[in-house]
Amino acid sequence: MNAPEALLLPDIQSIADHRNLAIDQVGVKGIRHPVQIRTAGGGLQPSVASISMYVGLPSNAKGTHMSRFLEVLQSHRRALDYTSLRELTGSMCLRLDATRGLVDIALPYFVTKTAPVSGATSLLDCDVRWRGKLDDTGFACALSITAPVTSLWPCSKEISAYGGHNQRSHITLSAELAAPMEIEELIRVAEQEASCEVFGLLKRSDKKRVTGRTHDNPRFLEDLVRDIALRLDGDTRIAAYVVESEHFESIHDHSAYARLARSAGSRRRA
Amino acid sequence: MNAPEALLLPDIQSIADHRNLAIDQVGVKGIRHPVQIRTAGGGLQPSVASISMYVGLPSNAKGTHMSRFLEVLQSHRRALDYTSLRELTGSMCLRLDATRGLVDIALPYFVTKTAPVSGATSLLDCDVRWRGKLDDTGFACALSITAPVTSLWPCSKEISAYGGHNQRSHITLSAELAAPMEIEELIRVAEQEASCEVFGLLKRSDKKRVTGRTHDNPRFLEDLVRDIALRLDGDTRIAAYVVESEHFESIHDHSAYARLARSAGSRRRA
Amino acid sequence: MNAPEALLLPDIQSIADHRNLAIDQVGVKGIRHPVQIRTAGGGLQPSVASISMYVGLPSNAKGTHMSRFLEVLQSHRRALDYTSLRELTGSMCLRLDATRGLVDIALPYFVTKTAPVSGATSLLDCDVRWRGKLDDTGFACALSITAPVTSLWPCSKEISAYGGHNQRSHITLSAELAAPMEIEELIRVAEQEASCEVFGLLKRSDKKRVTGRTHDNPRFLEDLVRDIALRLDGDTRIAAYVVESEHFESIHDHSAYARLARSAGSRRRA
Amino acid sequence: MNAPEALLLPDIQSIADHRNLAIDQVGVKGIRHPVQIRTAGGGLQPSVASISMYVGLPSNAKGTHMSRFLEVLQSHRRALDYTSLRELTGSMCLRLDATRGLVDIALPYFVTKTAPVSGATSLLDCDVRWRGKLDDTGFACALSITAPVTSLWPCSKEISAYGGHNQRSHITLSAELAAPMEIEELIRVAEQEASCEVFGLLKRSDKKRVTGRTHDNPRFLEDLVRDIALRLDGDTRIAAYVVESEHFESIHDHSAYARLARSAGSRRRA
Repeated sequence: MNAPEALLLPDIQSIADHRNLAIDQVGVKGIRHPVQIRTAGGGLQPSVASISMYVGLPSNAKGTHMSRFLEVLQSHRRALDYTSLRELTGSMCLRLDATRGLVDIALPYFVTKTAPVSGATSLLDCDVRWRGKLDDTGFACALSITAPVTSLWPCSKEISAYGGHNQRSHITLSAELAAPMEIEELIRVAEQEASCEVFGLLKRSDKKRVTGRTHDNPRFLEDLVRDIALRLDGDTRIAAYVVESEHFESIHDHSAYARLARSAGSRRRA
Repeated sequence: MNAPEALLLPDIQSIADHRNLAIDQVGVKGIRHPVQIRTAGGGLQPSVASISMYVGLPSNAKGTHMSRFLEVLQSHRRALDYTSLRELTGSMCLRLDATRGLVDIALPYFVTKTAPVSGATSLLDCDVRWRGKLDDTGFACALSITAPVTSLWPCSKEISAYGGHNQRSHITLSAELAAPMEIEELIRVAEQEASCEVFGLLKRSDKKRVTGRTHDNPRFLEDLVRDIALRLDGDTRIAAYVVESEHFESIHDHSAYARLARSAGSRRRA
Repeated sequence: MNAPEALLLPDIQSIADHRNLAIDQVGVKGIRHPVQIRTAGGGLQPSVASISMYVGLPSNAKGTHMSRFLEVLQSHRRALDYTSLRELTGSMCLRLDATRGLVDIALPYFVTKTAPVSGATSLLDCDVRWRGKLDDTGFACALSITAPVTSLWPCSKEISAYGGHNQRSHITLSAELAAPMEIEELIRVAEQEASCEVFGLLKRSDKKRVTGRTHDNPRFLEDLVRDIALRLDGDTRIAAYVVESEHFESIHDHSAYARLARSAGSRRRA
Repeated sequence: MNAPEALLLPDIQSIADHRNLAIDQVGVKGIRHPVQIRTAGGGLQPSVASISMYVGLPSNAKGTHMSRFLEVLQSHRRALDYTSLRELTGSMCLRLDATRGLVDIALPYFVTKTAPVSGATSLLDCDVRWRGKLDDTGFACALSITAPVTSLWPCSKEISAYGGHNQRSHITLSAELAAPMEIEELIRVAEQEASCEVFGLLKRSDKKRVTGRTHDNPRFLEDLVRDIALRLDGDTRIAAYVVESEHFESIHDHSAYARLARSAGSRRRA
């Protein structure tokens, strides 16, 4: 979840050069707030977010003004997307007389899914997180999605006549964006690389198709995060990323987990 | 989790008969506290509990003494079991001058599991909850366990050449005890009725056995809770019970859930 | 949180009379779903709910149809209020061929607050829970709200020249409704009986007023739940209720908690 | 909570230099496990931890062996401290044929507190997190504590005749250790810099003292994290640190939060 910290947190190194007690982040945390999200089709989707807003405080400033964060938030009316987040982060820094700032917005997002045989539609909930950062190098924006999927281990199929054990998994993709990108594009990458996508509503005919797809598509956790990384490498809108996958094992009471990150300077050219 | 509320909560009806503003529960909630649990073999297992302690306040009493709850808890040194819980509940009521009281203790409990082929041992964590209630009818004690298990739906096997979809499930058994009972007895009932038990550590040879056992033992959620109920019906130490099962579906992002309860007066004779 | 269980859960006693293995609840749990809520002014407020839907299964029925719950939910388009919940619960029972059913919908709800001096407006988030139950006695509906407030203990003021210690508290009111009622009415009862209401945004001038109001209005936890109970007793739309208050103590790391319940048959006439 | 990520996560930059698909972390997450913690006095305290264990996977390795993580954990019997964590991290890397590894252990830790006037003793629960990292630069160890404290804003005292609003706060100190350090030392720093420490059990006489101490010691959030940073700067055992403070505001339903970090290369000499 807290994947691209390294990308978004204030640059501690440069602060420390001054050997002063600048504060990296000060502000308000955990505000529940209704928002509108801009969707791929240009529409609006209402949701409820958990929002944190921080500014950096230079060493010569005594303190910040807590009530101003809420004023900025209450007066921001634009639907949430890349551009709106840049505006909100900028307004906050302006109102707080700050040169650095971080806005962190986490919310559920709903994707309409169509069952593969019956065509029945239902909503699937994904966790989405936007983080906007402003400092002397300009604005940086990270978009994270967590998509629920089905996973099946290849090893269990090999060692069993039965087809093995599968489970629910959560794939989290966090991308530092060099250009705007739709939430649903990242969700689709996660779903396509998993053993199978999940659905809110499946009829009997759908279940057969879904079970078959899962068993034809077993994936090692390690291959999953690598294949996703290869796809993100090929997207020039993504400056840096973190891929995480957590499998809620059905034969254990703990998770299997993997994480693969690329920083901005080190990305492979596709 | 909150299964036997009906069994343990103060008898609202009789309070209300007086048409006064008696308070059902007043006290302290959510105290994290180290405890020792008495195990089946007579040994002691350390754990960390979340504890709540309440008394009933009659209509003519202005208030209670919050610090006394902590005094009672701090001075109680006996390892947790049926007898110790009765003592703790009694001490609390005595110290608070109360005729009704409820002590609620939730904690993780570890069972040593042996893998079926390799013999490798590991610990499995289950959630355990003890609730002791004292009122004018005497002492009542409810013991709840939540055991993680593997579940496999029969319908998916029918409709698929692959053997279907399985997932992690949590089975919760809450029993009002007429006589002392070991924690591990309830855990074993849940594990034996599931498609398969889960383990902390499984080697390759174990996985084949476990996968096979799961696929030979598909269970409908409805059959699972009914079969467990039949077993609890046959145990004279159990005066009343609630069976709950929650399947963390691998093809959806929500749970399938069932609940079957028997109150004290309505138990079938086995 | 789980207050009016006793009011809404299936009547175990009558089931048990048949000495059969009827299942109290079977269905789907924890579906995240976007909803519209009907507000006091007749408007609509979007939110994101966690929804569970269960039916009772008679002893002669083998099982239920899990996918139908989602079909009912996906096709229900009306904004959430008393009438809409009755329709949804009825549709579910009809579609599942059930004579008993329970729909449980929990969601955040936002109230617009105006700061007492500056007049600055901001949103306050409250937790709301609707539970609709249908059985052979007809439809019953319980509405719960959890409002964050400020509390101040009277005892600390007495024993201190400084004015004592205050903290954030959560007041939960759960009402079984004999007639429709607005969410905001219950929230106002909680806020008016607390030491002070809380706000998203307060300017310096507001803080002085709010701090003063808090200190002029210290409340024992026991008095708080009793005074709220008195107000609910006087409302004929409320057939039964549970009042809960949890104080997140600033001088301890646990909560002080009280609970006062009135069942349907035992309500005092105001 | 996730403070010293930058200190402990694998060095993405150097991985990326090879332009290969090495995986930063792969392993097991969220294992609940009983542990013994070495205390300041040389004694042992039992607790229950949530443990994650990961290794780095080089680009030429296909995958890791999930069951071996559990084997290493099950066979590690030493009480948890700096030395034991180094051994566990080393054993894991050896067993998994890895040159990089991370072990993350979070658990509650209990401190015995003595009330200031009555002398009554009680336990206070703090969250503790140990993270051990092994890579080609050797072993690094980060110790984090989260201590609950009382905070009082100075501004409210100024603007009010009543002494203002206080609340519960959580102070988190995360230190990369250049040498072993006791858990309780870090907890004491947090408690001494707060407006007041909190206690499990306070008698009436204690409450007066505690309330007085709080009101004589109002602290701005910004001053709090700076003063703590100054103290950590003066400790040569601490190579790098993060200070976080979260105030659960009693007049709002969100938190005030600040964070101040020092990386290893940038520490001021005291």
